[in-house]
Amino acid sequence: MLTGLSAFSLTPFDGHGVDKAAFAGLVNRAAASGVDSIAVLGSTGSYTYLNPDERAEVAQIAAQNVGEKPLIVGIGALRTKDVLKNAESAQAAGANALLLAPVSYQVLTNDDVFGLFSDVNAAVSVPVIVYDNPTTTHFTFTDELYASIAALKNVGSFKIPGVPEDAAQAKARIDHLRSILPEDVTLGVSGDMFAATGLNAGCDAWYSSMAATLPDLAVPIVRAAAQGDVEGAVKASQQLQPLWDLNARFGSLRVIAAIAEELDLVSSPCLPLPIRGLQGDDREAVRRAMQKLGLL
Amino acid sequence: MLTGLSAFSLTPFDGHGVDKAAFAGLVNRAAASGVDSIAVLGSTGSYTYLNPDERAEVAQIAAQNVGEKPLIVGIGALRTKDVLKNAESAQAAGANALLLAPVSYQVLTNDDVFGLFSDVNAAVSVPVIVYDNPTTTHFTFTDELYASIAALKNVGSFKIPGVPEDAAQAKARIDHLRSILPEDVTLGVSGDMFAATGLNAGCDAWYSSMAATLPDLAVPIVRAAAQGDVEGAVKASQQLQPLWDLNARFGSLRVIAAIAEELDLVSSPCLPLPIRGLQGDDREAVRRAMQKLGLL
Repeated sequence: MLTGLSAFSLTPFDGHGVDKAAFAGLVNRAAASGVDSIAVLGSTGSYTYLNPDERAEVAQIAAQNVGEKPLIVGIGALRTKDVLKNAESAQAAGANALLLAPVSYQVLTNDDVFGLFSDVNAAVSVPVIVYDNPTTTHFTFTDELYASIAALKNVGSFKIPGVPEDAAQAKARIDHLRSILPEDVTLGVSGDMFAATGLNAGCDAWYSSMAATLPDLAVPIVRAAAQGDVEGAVKASQQLQPLWDLNARFGSLRVIAAIAEELDLVSSPCLPLPIRGLQGDDREAVRRAMQKLGLL
Repeated sequence: MLTGLSAFSLTPFDGHGVDKAAFAGLVNRAAASGVDSIAVLGSTGSYTYLNPDERAEVAQIAAQNVGEKPLIVGIGALRTKDVLKNAESAQAAGANALLLAPVSYQVLTNDDVFGLFSDVNAAVSVPVIVYDNPTTTHFTFTDELYASIAALKNVGSFKIPGVPEDAAQAKARIDHLRSILPEDVTLGVSGDMFAATGLNAGCDAWYSSMAATLPDLAVPIVRAAAQGDVEGAVKASQQLQPLWDLNARFGSLRVIAAIAEELDLVSSPCLPLPIRGLQGDDREAVRRAMQKLGLL
């Protein structure tokens, strides 16, 4: 289940809170596409901006709209008490796996983070994906901590933050992770621009920020890599260079939110304040890239 | 009001949530000391780990126990909607000023942060203290953004993250900030080990992590600086070197929490998970420092 193309949905907001109808539409649309699983309440789903009640409702709406696809639900929060609440509501909704990042305000120690995963491991009955995203959590995992956490019974996968650009270096990194992790734990690349390199290097999954909104552009990369077509995966990724350029400039959340707004999949602005979406010249740059990609 | 020694209280936790009785006791104790104001729900008060309902209750308990001292309440949160809720409940409780940091998960832009302060400025009727703490918020203010935010009507003070160790460089930094900020906006130093240097350099306030728990050790620094006794302030600070060493090693929150536990002001552990307090050898180092400081 924790393999292939996992599509992380936006959680669109309107003036009042979560735009439930638009969210249901996004999940439905992704479920009807060629992606392998649907993930909600990741960074692309603005999980840290929602309280446990809102999280429970989002998980329920996702479960109702995901069809036959496996559903991954993000449970991370600053406080362990809230993480456990989110784990309970996600499982009650029918989540097939849970995604957990060590979200921080105070700097966390390795002991704090191991304790968090250990507490969650003991409380859940579905696989946990370890979400490693130093840009947003400001926590840097060591390989030793990866190995300790991977030994917990319910840990099923790692969502790694990217791989080296060089194919040989990427393979060396993935090979090293394989050597220190149990065989049944999968590795998923994130940072969409690293997907082809990561999959070619042996990652089992691509945890993708773009794939729920733009499944047809994402699927060819995974399919090529799955067939061992290294060049095909690279070429499919290179065709999305206008998107990678935007992500490098604005961050993938603001980019995919602007694209979803331009495609009228969500109302505008769809991000939670204080995050202001891309406007003016920045928005124009998104539209130009969308034209190059054949999306407008 | 936003001058002198502002004492930031811990928010102690027990197995269930906020330990209200212990918190009331901490505020009471600080209010009976020589500090000039009491601040709750700062970083030392674990504000980001509490939801709006808990924040409202903490603000109310503080207001009931602060006596005649001015009360500052932290209102920061990841989502503007929650910040505005916290501002409302803090003012309803009787807060005399509000403390606001640009808490982030997604990287915030200057426009996002100006928008946040602008939205809060329009919604409140008491002074706002701009809380600049890049270690926890991962947002770095520019001087230009300081000036833009300082021009908002209700902005009354900046809680700056520290000053250069060198006295002349510290004075140059404070003089520069004075030159770009309105005259009626005060500057408060934080990072307790920088207090003497910051006050000697002309800061109006010390926003202190230690002062609610250890008021008698903090007051002499402020009193000396207020009398223009530069050497006296430096000496009073140097006497606390064992504390500064602990802060550099463990971060001030874990240190002051361990000290409050050792002094039986709070139950142990008093921090919210996933933050595990200092134990074992680390705890022993705290006890040794407390002995040197005459606290045990």
